[in-house]
Amino acid sequence: MIRCALFGAGRIGRLHADNLAAGKQVEFVRVYDPDPEAARAVAREHGCEVAQRDADCLAGDVDAAIIASATPTHIDLLTRAVKADKAVLCEKPIDLDIARVDAAQPVVTASAVPVMVGFNRRFDPGHRRLREAVAAGELGTPEQMIVSSRDPGLPPRDYLAASGGLFRDMMIHDFDMVRFVLGEEIKHLSATGSALVDPSLRELDDVDSAMVLMTTESGKLAHINCSRRAVYGYDQRIEVHGSAGMMLSDNPTPTTVRHADAQGTGCAPRLYDFFLDRYAQAFANQLAAFVDAVERSAKPDADFHAGRQALRLADAATEALHGRDPSLVSP
Amino acid sequence: MIRCALFGAGRIGRLHADNLAAGKQVEFVRVYDPDPEAARAVAREHGCEVAQRDADCLAGDVDAAIIASATPTHIDLLTRAVKADKAVLCEKPIDLDIARVDAAQPVVTASAVPVMVGFNRRFDPGHRRLREAVAAGELGTPEQMIVSSRDPGLPPRDYLAASGGLFRDMMIHDFDMVRFVLGEEIKHLSATGSALVDPSLRELDDVDSAMVLMTTESGKLAHINCSRRAVYGYDQRIEVHGSAGMMLSDNPTPTTVRHADAQGTGCAPRLYDFFLDRYAQAFANQLAAFVDAVERSAKPDADFHAGRQALRLADAATEALHGRDPSLVSP
Amino acid sequence: MIRCALFGAGRIGRLHADNLAAGKQVEFVRVYDPDPEAARAVAREHGCEVAQRDADCLAGDVDAAIIASATPTHIDLLTRAVKADKAVLCEKPIDLDIARVDAAQPVVTASAVPVMVGFNRRFDPGHRRLREAVAAGELGTPEQMIVSSRDPGLPPRDYLAASGGLFRDMMIHDFDMVRFVLGEEIKHLSATGSALVDPSLRELDDVDSAMVLMTTESGKLAHINCSRRAVYGYDQRIEVHGSAGMMLSDNPTPTTVRHADAQGTGCAPRLYDFFLDRYAQAFANQLAAFVDAVERSAKPDADFHAGRQALRLADAATEALHGRDPSLVSP
Amino acid sequence: MIRCALFGAGRIGRLHADNLAAGKQVEFVRVYDPDPEAARAVAREHGCEVAQRDADCLAGDVDAAIIASATPTHIDLLTRAVKADKAVLCEKPIDLDIARVDAAQPVVTASAVPVMVGFNRRFDPGHRRLREAVAAGELGTPEQMIVSSRDPGLPPRDYLAASGGLFRDMMIHDFDMVRFVLGEEIKHLSATGSALVDPSLRELDDVDSAMVLMTTESGKLAHINCSRRAVYGYDQRIEVHGSAGMMLSDNPTPTTVRHADAQGTGCAPRLYDFFLDRYAQAFANQLAAFVDAVERSAKPDADFHAGRQALRLADAATEALHGRDPSLVSP
Repeated sequence: MIRCALFGAGRIGRLHADNLAAGKQVEFVRVYDPDPEAARAVAREHGCEVAQRDADCLAGDVDAAIIASATPTHIDLLTRAVKADKAVLCEKPIDLDIARVDAAQPVVTASAVPVMVGFNRRFDPGHRRLREAVAAGELGTPEQMIVSSRDPGLPPRDYLAASGGLFRDMMIHDFDMVRFVLGEEIKHLSATGSALVDPSLRELDDVDSAMVLMTTESGKLAHINCSRRAVYGYDQRIEVHGSAGMMLSDNPTPTTVRHADAQGTGCAPRLYDFFLDRYAQAFANQLAAFVDAVERSAKPDADFHAGRQALRLADAATEALHGRDPSLVSP
Repeated sequence: MIRCALFGAGRIGRLHADNLAAGKQVEFVRVYDPDPEAARAVAREHGCEVAQRDADCLAGDVDAAIIASATPTHIDLLTRAVKADKAVLCEKPIDLDIARVDAAQPVVTASAVPVMVGFNRRFDPGHRRLREAVAAGELGTPEQMIVSSRDPGLPPRDYLAASGGLFRDMMIHDFDMVRFVLGEEIKHLSATGSALVDPSLRELDDVDSAMVLMTTESGKLAHINCSRRAVYGYDQRIEVHGSAGMMLSDNPTPTTVRHADAQGTGCAPRLYDFFLDRYAQAFANQLAAFVDAVERSAKPDADFHAGRQALRLADAATEALHGRDPSLVSP
Repeated sequence: MIRCALFGAGRIGRLHADNLAAGKQVEFVRVYDPDPEAARAVAREHGCEVAQRDADCLAGDVDAAIIASATPTHIDLLTRAVKADKAVLCEKPIDLDIARVDAAQPVVTASAVPVMVGFNRRFDPGHRRLREAVAAGELGTPEQMIVSSRDPGLPPRDYLAASGGLFRDMMIHDFDMVRFVLGEEIKHLSATGSALVDPSLRELDDVDSAMVLMTTESGKLAHINCSRRAVYGYDQRIEVHGSAGMMLSDNPTPTTVRHADAQGTGCAPRLYDFFLDRYAQAFANQLAAFVDAVERSAKPDADFHAGRQALRLADAATEALHGRDPSLVSP
Repeated sequence: MIRCALFGAGRIGRLHADNLAAGKQVEFVRVYDPDPEAARAVAREHGCEVAQRDADCLAGDVDAAIIASATPTHIDLLTRAVKADKAVLCEKPIDLDIARVDAAQPVVTASAVPVMVGFNRRFDPGHRRLREAVAAGELGTPEQMIVSSRDPGLPPRDYLAASGGLFRDMMIHDFDMVRFVLGEEIKHLSATGSALVDPSLRELDDVDSAMVLMTTESGKLAHINCSRRAVYGYDQRIEVHGSAGMMLSDNPTPTTVRHADAQGTGCAPRLYDFFLDRYAQAFANQLAAFVDAVERSAKPDADFHAGRQALRLADAATEALHGRDPSLVSP
């Protein structure tokens, strides 16, 4: 039984709390949040302790910590946790500043504790099946990958202003998917983008619609198209083409009803409206994989390096968007 | 080159005329219609002759005749054509009265000329692929068949009054599909039906919504559901289940676009609104198969026996609907 | 917080135990099974008590009972629970003998406690959405309903011999679906069936492949096709046609990947292989609905009457299959 | 009735010959091919004349000419035809050398005769429906476009060596689709590509797998992914996302059967193996649109400018692939 503490009792923290409470082989011992009432609410619901200080979540009775606090706190908590010999599941991004990530890397590398970055989509049943098909050679030699990534709507301006921009905030998941599914580093990248949903995003030097091309070290090609808006819900599809066939990880729908009327036929429902619903199974599977890695003292699937490389790709895309030639991104 | 004459210059006759004009190995020589202007219009469009009397379509320079005239004239023209040693493609139904069909049978049986009944759906690429899959054992031993058969809307009252009722007019195609796809005769049948689209159909002793169950000689099960109305267009699907799998011949759509908006995702267009559009390819393939049968002096796919058996099933369903126990329908 | 006890620690009992443990507003207090080790295993996993005698599950500290024991015990436990003023969620079928069900009815009717029958499919998100669309008039006036119901494979011979036959064991769910979705009683029914998967079932006077037609009181038409075998997994679809459109509750797949290779395109995975996986969400929703009904002292969705009527339809179909005219089945 | 002559009796010429023979309002008068036997074969099949010299196809009795000869002859024949006041339908590409295209432009611009370039995909029912939806604002303001374009397999080495490379030979259709569907010129483009199907293509300085990003003048984003190989057949999909929804023009399949067995469910057939089958309807519609434009002396849909712009985009992509910064491509 792994004893686990939680940093953060916000939206994503509460999701982890739910999964901790329902998870097997794991005990939810303590929660910390700078807002004590938020922490107390989680503690009440799940019968765990409230930590008075964040350090309490790294106390001797804790085996592992989940970091679901505000992004700027991630790297510090992660470093302290690793130093305290706690396994870590840290929400993405590790940090918005690659220099801070690089500075933390030696500590993580020197430690044997499992460190996992919260790339939950790796644990989505469809995306994972696709990765497994590629790895098993079911598609022959993979040649091209196309990722479609659309959120239902723009987040609030405040969020956007602190987000690090579309590539670091949103497309970082898709960059990770490319590395995860193809199993290769990226050698070259180009990008384009526009503020089409909300032209005033230009004031933030940001875009809401973007496309990226990537070439891997062996010459495989990858594309990501991304938008902050899709009126029909979360649209996140991945398609891989290989010498022997193709596989698409398509969108699930809340139900599998199909409707026909005078306007059309075969109409499925809207896609999910909320990423916590869309990826509910992925988050639960992610926690199970983390607990399993901790139990087996194994290197987790989405490690610190994965978090760093995704950020480097996001940085490169941001540079490319602004017309500056991105330095080669591998390794 | 087969020289072919045409009886009937109405809606279905004009379709056959178009296919005759575009067909390979066939020459469209003459058309007859009781309305001379209708015949002349067809002749003008396709550069063939107008027959003054119906007998001209069975003259010595004619190899084959297509009977697309009014239903009550079918059996007489068919009989005369066979006696005149002309190959015949006769629109369905051969007749609404099984006694008249039975009376004509000896003439047809005694003759070697190919006689084909216009069960065009046998020549639809999807339905035929399904038949071939069954025949080739791709589904293992076939066990169940489900046919969905919906027209976009009610035909005019006059048409309905002379139609012979839902089973003989509309479901006759589906009865033929069951025999065609399963390749077996029907041993038992039950039926139910209602006038739900237009309750006044009860005055005609007819229904607009019906379902039938059938059991074949070897115990296979078949079901047909049928309606005179589907607001989304012609809905005609066939599904066969066997010991090794299932196959569905699904509806085609006018285009393969798919649409998503705030209401839903993956929406295909309405189905076809008109059977001549839905089965355009089937009618063209049917004519090619007829011409091929004539050239090879071969027994055609949908022969006189098929026309008779489909009518017997329609009769049995009509009896069953009225609560009279249908006599066994095979052979 | 509802305090709930569980009868039965077999396959379906353990599923209810899992849901009880994870459920909100409910506490899993006690489990009984004639096999004490089975009960102890459940108790250990979920931290509840083991009942020494079945009566302990109806003790004063219990608000509600789930009956997931062997079918022959259902009606007795249900009656005792109601008399003890406990709310009941009883697995289907209530009993295989309508006379025993009828005998219990006065007790249930006289009591105010919620009694729910385990028609879990009513709580499947897709099937429920379909019911809601019908009830809300989204399809106009409903006219026809088609239910496809296939299990992956034959259960063991012992199970079959005690099952009450295909209609009472398997199709009973589908009969309930027809009443649930159309919201009407059945006036007439016909049936056919064969032992195609395993011809030796005839020795049990049973079939493994069956089809039923039904007519409701207002003349709506319904069809069920059913097989004990589908090599591609659980295939359970419901289709309703109305004056304004149609809706299909289609099969979910374990993932939404689609595959293309030299053999074909758009291939989805096999369907679920196990009903507990296929209906995992339905069982969880069912428990939540039961707890909710108990909390609100409300009449549950799938009540004793629903259980009785489904059995009466199964009886009528069994009679019809054997060529005996089924008596009218409503009310 | 438009009198039409045909240059070229090869594969694509014979397709045009078939459509000319079946077309309405058009008469197929004459065919020329440097190989007289090829021309004679076409003439025999369709009952038209054989031209002794190419000039005979521009004689006084001809209203319009279809140029389906070898690519290097296109621009000369097109220029001569326009000077002779004949309407022209010229197969793509107009030429592989933009300088030669530019040189011909004044002649075309100065003339009033309709000149159409053979971008047949504009006349595919699905792609055209998508264009119409965009133009009608059904998707709101269009924001992104994704084009997938895969051929079943590599053409012969000889063909490839003379093809002008992937972008000019194959992706030129997709460049035209972007301009056609979005209705805007391209402001910026980037490209990547690899020889993954046949690494020896590098000897030809060519690739078989490529991806392109484009930004239109108003900031819309477009992507094309392209491969010379797809083991499941022609895969040509177009997806447009707008502020109010998205539409996909999906692949048609030869039939609409769907198959399920122990390996999977919902499997559709392979896609078409041959572009003449895939785009049979598009080619027929294209000819009808050309004839219509000639009859109405109207500017055709896919005009000379469209042919020139698609070539300029292909040139820009070729430059970009080789790491040379493409000049801006509009206007």
